[in-house]
Amino acid sequence: STSSKQWSRAHDCRSREIFTGTHFQNFRHITSMAQLMTRENAEGILQNVDNFLFDCDGVLWDGNGPINGSLETVLRLKELGKRVFYVTNNSSQTREHYVKKCANYGYDAKKDEILCTAWIAAEYLRAANFKDKVYVMGKKESIGEELDAVGIKYTGPGPDPIVGTGYADWLQEIKLDPEVKCVVVGFDPHISYMKMIRAASYLKNPDCLFLATNKDGSLPVKDSVIRIPGTGCMVSPVSIASGREPIVMGKPAPNMFEVLRKVHNLDPSRCMMVGDRLDTDIQFARNCGMHSMLVLSGISTIDDIQRPAEIGEETHTRPDFYAENLAGLGIFI
Amino acid sequence: STSSKQWSRAHDCRSREIFTGTHFQNFRHITSMAQLMTRENAEGILQNVDNFLFDCDGVLWDGNGPINGSLETVLRLKELGKRVFYVTNNSSQTREHYVKKCANYGYDAKKDEILCTAWIAAEYLRAANFKDKVYVMGKKESIGEELDAVGIKYTGPGPDPIVGTGYADWLQEIKLDPEVKCVVVGFDPHISYMKMIRAASYLKNPDCLFLATNKDGSLPVKDSVIRIPGTGCMVSPVSIASGREPIVMGKPAPNMFEVLRKVHNLDPSRCMMVGDRLDTDIQFARNCGMHSMLVLSGISTIDDIQRPAEIGEETHTRPDFYAENLAGLGIFI
Repeated sequence: STSSKQWSRAHDCRSREIFTGTHFQNFRHITSMAQLMTRENAEGILQNVDNFLFDCDGVLWDGNGPINGSLETVLRLKELGKRVFYVTNNSSQTREHYVKKCANYGYDAKKDEILCTAWIAAEYLRAANFKDKVYVMGKKESIGEELDAVGIKYTGPGPDPIVGTGYADWLQEIKLDPEVKCVVVGFDPHISYMKMIRAASYLKNPDCLFLATNKDGSLPVKDSVIRIPGTGCMVSPVSIASGREPIVMGKPAPNMFEVLRKVHNLDPSRCMMVGDRLDTDIQFARNCGMHSMLVLSGISTIDDIQRPAEIGEETHTRPDFYAENLAGLGIFI
Repeated sequence: STSSKQWSRAHDCRSREIFTGTHFQNFRHITSMAQLMTRENAEGILQNVDNFLFDCDGVLWDGNGPINGSLETVLRLKELGKRVFYVTNNSSQTREHYVKKCANYGYDAKKDEILCTAWIAAEYLRAANFKDKVYVMGKKESIGEELDAVGIKYTGPGPDPIVGTGYADWLQEIKLDPEVKCVVVGFDPHISYMKMIRAASYLKNPDCLFLATNKDGSLPVKDSVIRIPGTGCMVSPVSIASGREPIVMGKPAPNMFEVLRKVHNLDPSRCMMVGDRLDTDIQFARNCGMHSMLVLSGISTIDDIQRPAEIGEETHTRPDFYAENLAGLGIFI
């Protein structure tokens, strides 16, 4: 666990590097202004970008199914010889699941073109040569399976309802597993007070790693009075109770791109991230030195990018380009 | 609900006023340094303070029972003619419960000497002339009973386990109650994903009030490997999912003192807050213009007050005085 701790610290430092975005030679690039997708902009993108990274939910599909025109755009980019990757913060699924989901919608994605946060968490621990046990606040069918695939033991998934009514009951009920040296928090619809106690208690040990798949506050649901809370709602209680900040696997942290870059030897200045969220996708692009495009078919709105920057505000979450949806690029190529 | 919204905004503005603490004439007051309790300091306190506000858990008692010497100190202060109040962020209990708990330990507290956050939340809504329904993420036997006492309808307390496995199930399951115009979040050991969905969905309506009893991250437990998450772990998921910040009833927000001041006509410069937490009790004292004393029998440690201030750090959480425990004042008076 000492080595995994050191590794995590080294990795942490690397994560804090902010790359400076390179700009297209053909464009005047105004840092704080997003440009609407036009034919001219699309041509510039085709000249300057070899690799397209797509967020999935809100870009390729949403809760209601495929988004009109997205598939055609992706297929056309592939025809033009562009490489396509699928980058999702969703921690409820394995890469295998995404291969199938993509295939159902016609995308024909291969496993190594898909980046899911459950897999990145497992990959992170495997690369750190982690040999102890993980306490998982998340799903067996995603984080659990990805840990199984790299041979790492874990405990935690599934229901863990409240027992008793106060201090004394909980102190008696909770038996900590001395093998646990890492807490991984992902999307967990079985979130409960017992799980919060367990996670926060393991994290009293400063040698216990704390990973979060992502920190999204809510999930995109169009045209509903219901708001669907995201993984950030599982991460923040653990963070607050333990007084510790997690190492975040998902966007906007650069861990996902680091993995992709190593495997495929990508030049970030020849990459474009396409997403529907300023605070995850576009910030991720900026953090990794990629170009960026916001589509308005998910969470963020035209108002979010058009309001004037407030004094002192970072411009890291302004996209280079935006369009109503992915078809807004497709129609020009 | 419009009037309650306006009231809440007005109240919010008032809450942001930061009072400037008055200093004892007999003391050189060094803002960033806490003074150990000495005979001379204790004499100064007796001359300058008429009203003592005590946090309970970690000051008067803890998970293991009464803290040695605390009762004697409080009784001695009363003998000397001082007024004593009990101010707790605990949202799991009514004032009646605290009267009984205090009596069990010998404190002989009266109902109007006790401030609990569940009662403050009900009092806040009563004063706002709130006539709609409250969604309570918290306990029936505290927040529920206090709302009953002021005739406000509510729904929510008790178990609300996850139903189904995804979006479609949740969207179908959740039926919002159109009467709900306020979400109150307190300590809730039945916290669940369904509750997060409901609370965040009600808060999509900008006219829906959002109150939190308090935001404590964890509860004091001495000498245990277990960490007990606090109300902050119920508040933060709702805040993150809804993208809204609650109006906070408990310390360090000044709402509790505002109520006490109105009822008892207190002069804050003649008041001292005694607590075990820098981020709640001592910050509360500063926010309300009271003197402050930290006891080390709960959460905060000597290291917390003795480390040098970091550059740019606020000194609002430095206590005026500190002692090992409440007996550290009692031995000198």
